[in-house]
Amino acid sequence: MSIEKELFRAGPYADFFSQGVRVGDSLYLAGQVGMTELGEIPTDLPTQVEVAYQNIAAVLAQFGATMDNIVDETFFVTDMSDCMGQVPAIFAIREAAYGKKPEVAQTLIGVAALVDPKLNVEIKVIAKI
Amino acid sequence: MSIEKELFRAGPYADFFSQGVRVGDSLYLAGQVGMTELGEIPTDLPTQVEVAYQNIAAVLAQFGATMDNIVDETFFVTDMSDCMGQVPAIFAIREAAYGKKPEVAQTLIGVAALVDPKLNVEIKVIAKI
Amino acid sequence: MSIEKELFRAGPYADFFSQGVRVGDSLYLAGQVGMTELGEIPTDLPTQVEVAYQNIAAVLAQFGATMDNIVDETFFVTDMSDCMGQVPAIFAIREAAYGKKPEVAQTLIGVAALVDPKLNVEIKVIAKI
Repeated sequence: MSIEKELFRAGPYADFFSQGVRVGDSLYLAGQVGMTELGEIPTDLPTQVEVAYQNIAAVLAQFGATMDNIVDETFFVTDMSDCMGQVPAIFAIREAAYGKKPEVAQTLIGVAALVDPKLNVEIKVIAKI
Repeated sequence: MSIEKELFRAGPYADFFSQGVRVGDSLYLAGQVGMTELGEIPTDLPTQVEVAYQNIAAVLAQFGATMDNIVDETFFVTDMSDCMGQVPAIFAIREAAYGKKPEVAQTLIGVAALVDPKLNVEIKVIAKI
Repeated sequence: MSIEKELFRAGPYADFFSQGVRVGDSLYLAGQVGMTELGEIPTDLPTQVEVAYQNIAAVLAQFGATMDNIVDETFFVTDMSDCMGQVPAIFAIREAAYGKKPEVAQTLIGVAALVDPKLNVEIKVIAKI
C-alpha cells in the first residue's frame, strides 16, 4: 500500500530523518530542541523552550502551517524539579509562542538524557492540517 | 491553513493546555495521572493506574467517546521493577477499565520523573472517533 | 461513537495489548524491542535496533504495510552515550531496514528503564496506510 508523503529535511541529520512528515491531514514533527541554527544552546530552560518553539514554528511553516495547527505536544525534560520551579516563566514563553492560550493537549515527562548533555528540554508535537 | 478544534479544558492548568483536543476523527488526550479530583494520590501503583483510567474515561466522555475509542496508549512509570512485579494486578485493573481485553497498542517506558514525586505512572492515550 | 478497529495480537501479552491497531488510514504499533521470536536479546545496541526493525516490519506486514508506511518513530534508549557513540552503525542499520534514506520524523529520548534490563532500545512507530 503506497502513501504520499511530504517531507522537510534539514540540518546535519537530513539524510537520516525528516524534521516534518505530512500524510493527508496529519503532520508529524521530529522532536525539536533549544539549539539555534548556529548550534548554540542557551543555558537556561525557559530560553531553550523559546528556541525550541522557534524551531517548531519554522518546520510548520515549511508545510504552510502555524502553531495553531498543533494538537498535541510532549515535553521531555532532564530536570523535572528545575522545570516545575520555572513553570510561570515557561508558560509565559509558551503563550507567547502560540500567540494565545495554547489549544493543545500536553504531556510532561522527566527523562534520563537527551541527545546532547547541554539540552534540558525536547518538545515533540503533532499537528493537523 | 485553519483547522477546527474541539477542546476540553479542566483543572488548575486549564489555561495552559487542554485535557483533550479533537480534530476530525483524531482525539489527543493529555497524559493522565493517578490523582483524584480532590488532589489525592494513592500510594500504590495499581490504584494510581485505576484512577488514571477513570480520568481518561472522564475526558473521553466530554467528546462523546468511551474507552473503546482508544487505539494507542503509552505508560510512563517511575519504577519499572515495581511495575513489572505487579503486572497481574495492573492488567486486571486495565481489563476492568476497558470492560474487556483492551484493543489497543501499548508501550511501557521507565522515566526519570513525573510532574509530582508522589506519582508512579502517567498514561497517555490517543483515540479515534 | 463506534469505530472499526483492525488488530494484530501476538506474543505472551496478546490478551493485554495489540502489536498493531488500525483505524481508517492510521496504524499505531506497540513499541518494538530487540528481542527475537525465540526470546533472545542481542547484547549490542545496533543488533537490537536491527531486530526491533524486523519486528516492526513483521507487524506492518500483518496490515499489508511496509516500512514505507512509517511516518514517525521514537527511539527510547537506556544509554544515550552508548547510542550517540554508535550513530554511524545504527544509521546504517536503519537505512538497510528502510531500504533507503528513511522518510520519517524521529525523536530520540534517553529513558530510565525498559521492560527488560537487557534491552537497550525500544522503537515506537506510527504508520499511515
